[in-house]
Amino acid sequence: MNSLIELVNKKLDEYVQIIYPEEIFKSMKYTLMLPGKRLRPVMCLEIVRMLGGDIEVALPTACAIEMLHVQSLIHDDLPCMDNDDFRRGKPSNHKVFGEANAVLAGDALLTFAPQLIIEKTKGKLPDEIILKLVHEYTKFAGAYALIAGQVVDIESECGKLVRSAEETLDFIHMNKTAALFRLPIRCGAIIAGKIDLVEELDEFAKKFGLAFQIYDDIMDEISTFEELGKTIGKDKNSGKLTYVSLYGLEEAKNKFGLLINDCYDIVNKYHSNVFKNILDKLRERILGV
Amino acid sequence: MNSLIELVNKKLDEYVQIIYPEEIFKSMKYTLMLPGKRLRPVMCLEIVRMLGGDIEVALPTACAIEMLHVQSLIHDDLPCMDNDDFRRGKPSNHKVFGEANAVLAGDALLTFAPQLIIEKTKGKLPDEIILKLVHEYTKFAGAYALIAGQVVDIESECGKLVRSAEETLDFIHMNKTAALFRLPIRCGAIIAGKIDLVEELDEFAKKFGLAFQIYDDIMDEISTFEELGKTIGKDKNSGKLTYVSLYGLEEAKNKFGLLINDCYDIVNKYHSNVFKNILDKLRERILGV
Repeated sequence: MNSLIELVNKKLDEYVQIIYPEEIFKSMKYTLMLPGKRLRPVMCLEIVRMLGGDIEVALPTACAIEMLHVQSLIHDDLPCMDNDDFRRGKPSNHKVFGEANAVLAGDALLTFAPQLIIEKTKGKLPDEIILKLVHEYTKFAGAYALIAGQVVDIESECGKLVRSAEETLDFIHMNKTAALFRLPIRCGAIIAGKIDLVEELDEFAKKFGLAFQIYDDIMDEISTFEELGKTIGKDKNSGKLTYVSLYGLEEAKNKFGLLINDCYDIVNKYHSNVFKNILDKLRERILGV
Repeated sequence: MNSLIELVNKKLDEYVQIIYPEEIFKSMKYTLMLPGKRLRPVMCLEIVRMLGGDIEVALPTACAIEMLHVQSLIHDDLPCMDNDDFRRGKPSNHKVFGEANAVLAGDALLTFAPQLIIEKTKGKLPDEIILKLVHEYTKFAGAYALIAGQVVDIESECGKLVRSAEETLDFIHMNKTAALFRLPIRCGAIIAGKIDLVEELDEFAKKFGLAFQIYDDIMDEISTFEELGKTIGKDKNSGKLTYVSLYGLEEAKNKFGLLINDCYDIVNKYHSNVFKNILDKLRERILGV
């Protein structure tokens, strides 16, 4: 697990070189290199390893997906969105580089990610497969997933609900949180040449994504700033729609428990220590076992 | 020329369907469908026609490039950037949909554009060529071109010049304005299967791009709001670095004249009425002949 995180950090640092005009590359790199769990790229690499693929070939795609994740954090933190001053324990991008640069750094990461997949994978996988990876990226990064989730999230905060609260909450997180796990897991299977396993693993990714969001909502309720490195209790204070606010803490824990138990199937089937490690940590933190 | 514009408008309208969550698709479509000259997609299609390619096959790419252009307009108009309330004679995106939606609509267009190229060109061109088109898109849309130009533009407005004023101005517009003409022209040659002509046509695109920016700077000096549909005299009033502010009106006209004359080579070589039409209009407006 730690060696995969180190590998991702090393590659992220290598892929973004600071050239003229330096400010934009510094801004991209600032949030990108803040210490993080690198869950998404690590899961992508682990899927590739599990299915007998080549981790080296998967690194550009894994890192590109982390760039997309960081892009969404930079734009979500903007004053016109969630207006968050801290991210991973440090001042958010726009607090350091200003709003204009934060918008542009997000834009730059959003388009650098597929560029990286193409340039660093070309010749190592067939063009058809690279095109498939970029297609997956564009499907999940845009208005049909990630951005749809963010838009409905913002609308729900303004009390504008087109669908029921339950449906709205699931829509937001299937498209926001889960999409960012579905993408690396689907890409992992594609890189490993196991196209026939994409849909089965996608089911795992959806369940894991929702479990992870419920984990996040519960942690926002019970943790401290020091533990999470971001503003805490904001959801509660703003009356935001979360799994805890909608179902209550106990029912949210139950939902989390059911989803996370299903996720262990992947550990049993593929004997993945990395996935066992990730699932164990989340379960212990929420359920104490 | 007009039939190409109509074709582009029809396809843009068709490609962006308004589904749930409607607000984001409405926001994307609002700025996209404001009446414009559609110069970039039209030039892409005309290159394809000139070189014997299939315009139908080129339409998704041509429209994707217009989406990138519109994305850059939406984000440039934001309060934290140029803070412009009008675009193409109408309220800018953030004035109608709010800042959060304007940021997200830009993000969504930026990633929908390559998705469109892949989904609508798949099977009509070899995967290798589609991958090349998407690669060109990512190279020009990001921190190595369009965004680099925008960052240096913003820095120069704050009086922060790392290079000389002349070099800075050329860097900004080679990366901002010219990049958005280089991309459709290069893609046009690629779609037509004339890879060997890409670099020659790229030289035309660079000259046209700079000429077009000088045209724009001069028009900002001599036009009215009614003519341009956007705030006028802003550059002058803000002391912005432009070809007119740096070289004076007469010298800017001279520079424009030299560049635009070179551009006529393409008209003579390929007998393109569309390019003749575009060049004639620009020249007449600035030089009166």
